[in-house]
Amino acid sequence: MTRFDTAMEAHDAFYQALEMSDFELMQSVWLADDRVICIHPLWPPLSRHDEVLDSWKGMFDHGQSLSVTASIISCREARDHCTHLVEELLIPPGVASPQHPIIATNQYIYVDESWRMTLHHASPTARIEDITGENGSGPSTQLH
Amino acid sequence: MTRFDTAMEAHDAFYQALEMSDFELMQSVWLADDRVICIHPLWPPLSRHDEVLDSWKGMFDHGQSLSVTASIISCREARDHCTHLVEELLIPPGVASPQHPIIATNQYIYVDESWRMTLHHASPTARIEDITGENGSGPSTQLH
Repeated sequence: MTRFDTAMEAHDAFYQALEMSDFELMQSVWLADDRVICIHPLWPPLSRHDEVLDSWKGMFDHGQSLSVTASIISCREARDHCTHLVEELLIPPGVASPQHPIIATNQYIYVDESWRMTLHHASPTARIEDITGENGSGPSTQLH
Repeated sequence: MTRFDTAMEAHDAFYQALEMSDFELMQSVWLADDRVICIHPLWPPLSRHDEVLDSWKGMFDHGQSLSVTASIISCREARDHCTHLVEELLIPPGVASPQHPIIATNQYIYVDESWRMTLHHASPTARIEDITGENGSGPSTQLH
């Protein structure tokens, strides 16, 4: 199984797998245990390893190819764990640009000489400037 | 500032602060740096420390009290970092029960003799049985 020497390598492989519908690469990215967490936008959380991989297989078998742009907005990295905040732009063929980005928090840990993904939480959101203007001053009304 | 000896103590304080609209307690839960991540449901991500705290202050100043039930579905804990998958049921007064839970991934790290929150990513979702039936067999159509 492919090893990833850095969290960035695992990140690159994850988004390459998503763009190319490459199930084997996606499989190699995920840590093989049952405390992983995968939340696709608006879907219930998946946490069993086989359930997470089945979800990607279903998507790759039935979905269309996508142009994927993944921008890391924030990164917290320590010796053996790393968390990224990522803005995902997923554009189907023939569509100029997505209305709203998907925001994802991704976590990788270093185990058995490789970085592996343990968390992918993706959800729909708006750009800060769509809601607050460009100063990003944050929400003022009830959010939860 | 209050110290939290375990990630569970920080978890309990976070949800107590949310239920009681207790800004000082919420402030003590969050790590004071600018790589924290807070994503309220359907909102753009906030990552500056002051921006995150302002969002909670805005919510507490303008919102109504809530009954909060937070169930940890999955936990990955290591020496100095801990990630929880939490199902949140947030019920305003006079409402019997929420239609759909909020799902949150929360991360805490141990620094300067206390556990502090570094990530709260909350998003709307459905229960697994609402989508797949009770077998939780996972999605079969395109998710992203």
